[in-house]
Amino acid sequence: MIARLSSLFVRTLRDDPADAEVPSHRWLVRAGYIRRVAPGIYSWLPLGLKVLQKVEAIVREEMDAIGAQEVHLPALLPREPYEATNRWTDYGDNLFRLVDRKGTDMLLGPTHEEMFTLLVKDLYNSYKDLPLSLYQIQTKYRDEARPRAGLLRGREFVMKDSYSFDVDDAGLDASYQAHRGAYVRIFERLGLDYVIVSAMAGAMGGSRSEEFLAVAANGEDTFVRSAGGYAANVEAVRTAAPEPLPVADAPAMATVATPGVGSIAGVVDLLNSEHARPEGWGGADTLKNVLFMVTEPSGESYPLALGLPGDREVDAKRLEAALEPSVAQPFSAEDFEKYPDLKVGFISPVSLDGTRVLGEESATGIRYLTDPRVVEGTHWVTGANVVDEHLSGVTVGRDFTADGVLDVAEVREGDPAPDGSGPMTLARGIEMGHIFQLGRRYAEAMGLKVLDQNGKLVTVTMGSYGVGVSRAVAAVAEATADDKGLSWPVTLAPYQVQVLATGKDPSIFEEAERIASELSAKGLDVLVDDRKASPGVKFADAEIMGMPVTVVVGRGLADGVVEIRNRATGERNEVALAQAVRAVEELVGAKRS
Amino acid sequence: MIARLSSLFVRTLRDDPADAEVPSHRWLVRAGYIRRVAPGIYSWLPLGLKVLQKVEAIVREEMDAIGAQEVHLPALLPREPYEATNRWTDYGDNLFRLVDRKGTDMLLGPTHEEMFTLLVKDLYNSYKDLPLSLYQIQTKYRDEARPRAGLLRGREFVMKDSYSFDVDDAGLDASYQAHRGAYVRIFERLGLDYVIVSAMAGAMGGSRSEEFLAVAANGEDTFVRSAGGYAANVEAVRTAAPEPLPVADAPAMATVATPGVGSIAGVVDLLNSEHARPEGWGGADTLKNVLFMVTEPSGESYPLALGLPGDREVDAKRLEAALEPSVAQPFSAEDFEKYPDLKVGFISPVSLDGTRVLGEESATGIRYLTDPRVVEGTHWVTGANVVDEHLSGVTVGRDFTADGVLDVAEVREGDPAPDGSGPMTLARGIEMGHIFQLGRRYAEAMGLKVLDQNGKLVTVTMGSYGVGVSRAVAAVAEATADDKGLSWPVTLAPYQVQVLATGKDPSIFEEAERIASELSAKGLDVLVDDRKASPGVKFADAEIMGMPVTVVVGRGLADGVVEIRNRATGERNEVALAQAVRAVEELVGAKRS
Repeated sequence: MIARLSSLFVRTLRDDPADAEVPSHRWLVRAGYIRRVAPGIYSWLPLGLKVLQKVEAIVREEMDAIGAQEVHLPALLPREPYEATNRWTDYGDNLFRLVDRKGTDMLLGPTHEEMFTLLVKDLYNSYKDLPLSLYQIQTKYRDEARPRAGLLRGREFVMKDSYSFDVDDAGLDASYQAHRGAYVRIFERLGLDYVIVSAMAGAMGGSRSEEFLAVAANGEDTFVRSAGGYAANVEAVRTAAPEPLPVADAPAMATVATPGVGSIAGVVDLLNSEHARPEGWGGADTLKNVLFMVTEPSGESYPLALGLPGDREVDAKRLEAALEPSVAQPFSAEDFEKYPDLKVGFISPVSLDGTRVLGEESATGIRYLTDPRVVEGTHWVTGANVVDEHLSGVTVGRDFTADGVLDVAEVREGDPAPDGSGPMTLARGIEMGHIFQLGRRYAEAMGLKVLDQNGKLVTVTMGSYGVGVSRAVAAVAEATADDKGLSWPVTLAPYQVQVLATGKDPSIFEEAERIASELSAKGLDVLVDDRKASPGVKFADAEIMGMPVTVVVGRGLADGVVEIRNRATGERNEVALAQAVRAVEELVGAKRS
Repeated sequence: MIARLSSLFVRTLRDDPADAEVPSHRWLVRAGYIRRVAPGIYSWLPLGLKVLQKVEAIVREEMDAIGAQEVHLPALLPREPYEATNRWTDYGDNLFRLVDRKGTDMLLGPTHEEMFTLLVKDLYNSYKDLPLSLYQIQTKYRDEARPRAGLLRGREFVMKDSYSFDVDDAGLDASYQAHRGAYVRIFERLGLDYVIVSAMAGAMGGSRSEEFLAVAANGEDTFVRSAGGYAANVEAVRTAAPEPLPVADAPAMATVATPGVGSIAGVVDLLNSEHARPEGWGGADTLKNVLFMVTEPSGESYPLALGLPGDREVDAKRLEAALEPSVAQPFSAEDFEKYPDLKVGFISPVSLDGTRVLGEESATGIRYLTDPRVVEGTHWVTGANVVDEHLSGVTVGRDFTADGVLDVAEVREGDPAPDGSGPMTLARGIEMGHIFQLGRRYAEAMGLKVLDQNGKLVTVTMGSYGVGVSRAVAAVAEATADDKGLSWPVTLAPYQVQVLATGKDPSIFEEAERIASELSAKGLDVLVDDRKASPGVKFADAEIMGMPVTVVVGRGLADGVVEIRNRATGERNEVALAQAVRAVEELVGAKRS
């Protein structure tokens, strides 16, 4: 196939778009692959659409290869099924809702668990019909609070979503593993440097869940990995809890006067000064108590206190993931006013006489959760719930017991992996795929049951699997673009070869066309720059547009040579005219393998 | 490619869906091609999606062949561009509107003229960039008042829409003709019996417009054609106006007493009775005056009177098309109360003393339009605007002059074609494609101008072209289904061949699989019915699902024969096992050509 820049619907831009924060966004817009229509909503121009269609083809092939069957569900959906699973409410503002002319509530599908569950319920009724995996490649909608980075976080985007249906857990495991294998092949074919990390199921519910992250400095997701093979999304990292200590070994609780020191940093400074170090200090860490107001999707709120080591901050994303679909805000001054018993800067789970101040059984009744490191027998310096006073020797299991654990403290480079596989390093990535073992949550909500071998109705167990198809275009661009523009792998490039006619002599244009048709006859897709433009413009545009191989037909033609450029490496070679087509074929072939 | 019914996600239904009015809807649902999710909103199951994708491929090939370039715009769109062309309002309840989390008005795109105009404006600025044709195959949304007939009139549907951009009228003509040619090839490849008819531009605006209708007894559209080659959508039929007559030849106006006769039929009866025939009657026709209240998209209303021959009714669709985007309702009793001068049953444009009763210059001030047949010099019997009285000899150009023409009377079989090509016949069709010469309306509204050869800014002229892609699946089904089920042409069938293993002997299943793989190796797509089901179930399902060729491997196997069935003709042939694959290939080949 041959296309020509004189007629191709594309324009490169000299300047970065104002809102471009990351290379993929900048170059996809500047190279004329996509155009912004509204926040998080883009048009695909011919070059961009070709890349998108190539990604779709790879995804389709690999899904077909595991026996998943392609279907296509609507994007405009009725409210009722999402009501049955609470997601009509739980999605909050992320859901695009609308009302049709008859006053019926509808939504734009953010993901289709409910609809697939109903569809299978509509058609199937026996264990003999299972296992079943269905998929679709479809436009999805989420009203993101902060759409950003072009295609990386959009409000209208293309996803492959699939759903597996099995009669038992072993079947779900097999379906999950089949999808995992397909995803490995997809991301390898896309040429992405990716990791598979443990993930939180979040609003999806369900048990096991892993994410495929493309490693990327500008990725929105942070993940950890250890040399020993542990890898997890930072939201999913489980902090290793130390062994409990004998409570009897703990020092007695004692008051420490901390006049005017209402911050943990101040307390640490004070305690570290020999002079003020209280009895029973013994090197204990400080315990910081933080208060949140948690709002449920229904709009109801409740207060929540979290006790965590004083040197750790709460990680906002880990907190969000842990409480989803509820949302937490730090206590405001007004919130504190409602609880006059809490002395800001000196909050404590306990007072000197052992009275509980936080916790469901306490005077305030505020639910009190602690970091996994706050185990029985550990003792801490914490507030005294009296202005200008702290307590030392506050011992877990003796002076207070928390209502539960909340593992949302920041994860640090060097923290131990929870599986004992060594210290963890932190890196960033782009979420490209997510696989979930949903279990029976959706099947139960929608009543999807089949008859088992004994003629008994059993609830089906499901998996849900997603690939960000439009996001993959950006992720590959992000991984391959350099400071001159895009640089596609041959598998995804809109055209494998760009032939530049640089010069004014008609023979140059004729020769460029001749080479292009020969390359096209060999099965390559070729873009000819046949514009009346300067060589400088053509070179710069070729680098921005990023086809893997460029053939320059110009001044060298008089000497019977053309130049072949390798976009990714920058390598340039002069090749005799007669060898040009073969040399391009070889270069494309070498890049393919 | 081979698929097996034991695992294919499909179930045939014994009963018609409750809302099925037409064969395509009934059979696409019963054969497991589509499933209803909400009114006018369907899911595509594997078999249906394959047909849809084949239609898409044909459309894509033919659009590419005329040099149109594929892009993909969002379905979720901002309000502003549609505001600039008034379509935000003009679309009325047909537009799905929504508000995002920031309170911004958005819509689901029903068609994309505005967005394409803006996109071209964003990239192009010179006559050298034109001509340009862009297309997309995309999901569209219209909140139809009465979604019906399955895919034929849906609220979420797939369309190919394209847009041409030219610097002058000759260019637009060429782009229009190129699209027209592509559409002819598309509908021929789809195997549809279609007609190209003149059409109304409707809410799209613009000048020339034609529709491609698939001839279908259940079609929603009525069209006319003459033996001499005239063809038009019934909304677009222009009534042939007779030559004016000399006013001087008309009889004098006279009163006719018509006590208690307040209907045209009654007046005709009365006038036809020798006894009552008034002076000056001379065989004149009756003129019926009908009143409407017209509501504009803004919500404002005005009264409108229409005078038409008494033997014709107003055609609701022609009236709707003529007034779009405004909507007309017959005068209600309350409307009449506001105009006490109008005597119901005896309404007249004029009174005996020549005073105008209807018309902008009249006492009532009501705009008065007449049918094209009401030309100067014709005289009519009409109301006297006095209860129980009519007037005869009421002559156009002498006794009254209308404010204009409104051509919305019913069209009848046998009416003369407006181009003199003979009497017209009426038939029904499904609108499959629509091509418009939009002209400069959208380019003007959005400010799309380019520099012409003289360096002067000129407004671009546009065309807009649509194909109903999902509707085409239904139209082909509608044209080919019979009383046993679907019956696909080989070009669109999900599988060209269905191999039935009918019997219990394992050798039957083995032989069916062997034939299927041989056929697949020959490049055919094969569906094997390998279920443990009775021959009766398999035969019935094969007929419902409608693959063009069926191979029955069953009892004949003992004698070394299989049966080959031609779904469309019902023909059955026993063929020696060794000849089976070749015979199927030949039959598929014969059907293809």
